[in-house]
Amino acid sequence: MKNIGIDIGGTFIKAAIVEGRGKIVLSSKTPTPKNGQEIPKKVIEIIEELTGKAKIDISEIKSVGIGVPGVCDTKKGTIVNCPNIENCKSIEICKCISQRFGVDAYIDNDANCAALGEYTVSDMKSESFVFVTLGTGVGGGIILGGRLLRGINSAAGEVGHIVIKQNGERCNCGRRGCWERYASVTALVRQAKEAGFTGNVSGRSIFADRAKGNKKADEVIKQWLEYVAEGICDMVNIFQPEEIVIGGGISREGNIILEPVAEFAQKYSIKDTNSKRNTKIRISKLFNDAGVVGASFLYTQN
Amino acid sequence: MKNIGIDIGGTFIKAAIVEGRGKIVLSSKTPTPKNGQEIPKKVIEIIEELTGKAKIDISEIKSVGIGVPGVCDTKKGTIVNCPNIENCKSIEICKCISQRFGVDAYIDNDANCAALGEYTVSDMKSESFVFVTLGTGVGGGIILGGRLLRGINSAAGEVGHIVIKQNGERCNCGRRGCWERYASVTALVRQAKEAGFTGNVSGRSIFADRAKGNKKADEVIKQWLEYVAEGICDMVNIFQPEEIVIGGGISREGNIILEPVAEFAQKYSIKDTNSKRNTKIRISKLFNDAGVVGASFLYTQN
Repeated sequence: MKNIGIDIGGTFIKAAIVEGRGKIVLSSKTPTPKNGQEIPKKVIEIIEELTGKAKIDISEIKSVGIGVPGVCDTKKGTIVNCPNIENCKSIEICKCISQRFGVDAYIDNDANCAALGEYTVSDMKSESFVFVTLGTGVGGGIILGGRLLRGINSAAGEVGHIVIKQNGERCNCGRRGCWERYASVTALVRQAKEAGFTGNVSGRSIFADRAKGNKKADEVIKQWLEYVAEGICDMVNIFQPEEIVIGGGISREGNIILEPVAEFAQKYSIKDTNSKRNTKIRISKLFNDAGVVGASFLYTQN
Repeated sequence: MKNIGIDIGGTFIKAAIVEGRGKIVLSSKTPTPKNGQEIPKKVIEIIEELTGKAKIDISEIKSVGIGVPGVCDTKKGTIVNCPNIENCKSIEICKCISQRFGVDAYIDNDANCAALGEYTVSDMKSESFVFVTLGTGVGGGIILGGRLLRGINSAAGEVGHIVIKQNGERCNCGRRGCWERYASVTALVRQAKEAGFTGNVSGRSIFADRAKGNKKADEVIKQWLEYVAEGICDMVNIFQPEEIVIGGGISREGNIILEPVAEFAQKYSIKDTNSKRNTKIRISKLFNDAGVVGASFLYTQN
């Protein structure tokens, strides 16, 4: 059985035909239209191209799933608002796709799709699963008993917007001290600049400096990882999930990130000293493919 | 159909025969044995007395549910550890009760029981439900799709142990800056003392002073409610639940607590401006009976 996953980003639309438990048959990457209203037409073109190239008839496709970088209505199948794409409001994207191809179409936000993607790697057996993505912000997706936690308004799982420093840095969401103001890659870069790094600083450059033995980079990363760990520890205390997975491009740094975070959580979270069944924390496995693979599995959630 | 709920506290054991959707037929209150190992025997006596007085044969009782102020193993039906009761470790309480009366027996921690009790007042229809109890600490219970969120080790829902002030006050759990260090009634009393209140200060006395027009009491309460609201806002951003219910003895203050907290959450949480389906925050309805009523409903969770 094949499904198509579409991962709409601010810059590119990624698409893939996905088979079985997350195997990508064929994928593509196309610039995102400047005008959000043109997205449905573009996505239809992408699907036509992709199935054409793969020589797969649309009748072999069970469903299309779409991930968007913003708010959507999972029940109505609409994009409500993507603040990073111009004119990207109130778009009936699922209806357009269903009508064109005669397949079911589903939508969810990108973090939920990425969570679902990573969850497939756990063979979809994890009874409770928290995905945290470190990037421009801190996103999240929570899967309990195989179901994405969407809340009453499809907006649940905004783990980046829990406050770890009351009255701290102002956040775009309107609060102060949100976790993402300290634990995102954006925050890491800001912290590095505050520590004296200049020029073209990025998450990657800071980790590269550290690898070269730069002490200041090491200190900045250590402090940043403590911020990351505080929120992860909160997730353990709230959910005691089977797994917490850390994703986002920066998670490619692997154990440099994982070990201190896991150690902190092990030390400070509420644990079960009796059965010793405690949360396993790991790094993502799909990295940039998590979104597109997860989108292709949205049909399991509806 | 009748069930028995038992709410074991550090000082008293409350018990009730509960009918239908939370109607208490008869209840009792007995001092908790000093030695935790004597609890099963005491609970058996309480059940015998209660059913005797109510002239109800044990065959009319569908199940017994037990709430404990500590860690339990919901699957094995055992008390793992109640730190506030001496010698209260590794007690096979459900087995003792089942063997004595031939009924099913279930166990969970007191905050989960209280959550379940309040949930019955919502006619058990709330699709997602977060209960927060403000008392000696800050406890919580989360019910999603009718199921208590227990996590892999029965320790989920420890909402009092999310950090709202990194590197803040030291908490008993080992972390610093946990929500309960700022938002519990214990914290309110500490904050009042820091503001100059002396003598026999309690949550009740501070609210009484405020009611008499004491400005300092008003300021202390305002600051405390901001701490309460920060964590409530975190709960909205994580779960976007249908309802958040605030319980604990102090919640009898009603709107004095509810209004500023709801206003803060309305202002600072991530909202759905599209469908306007947002979390409803309310004060508990059962107060001190939540635990015993909820315990009687534990059979619905197993």
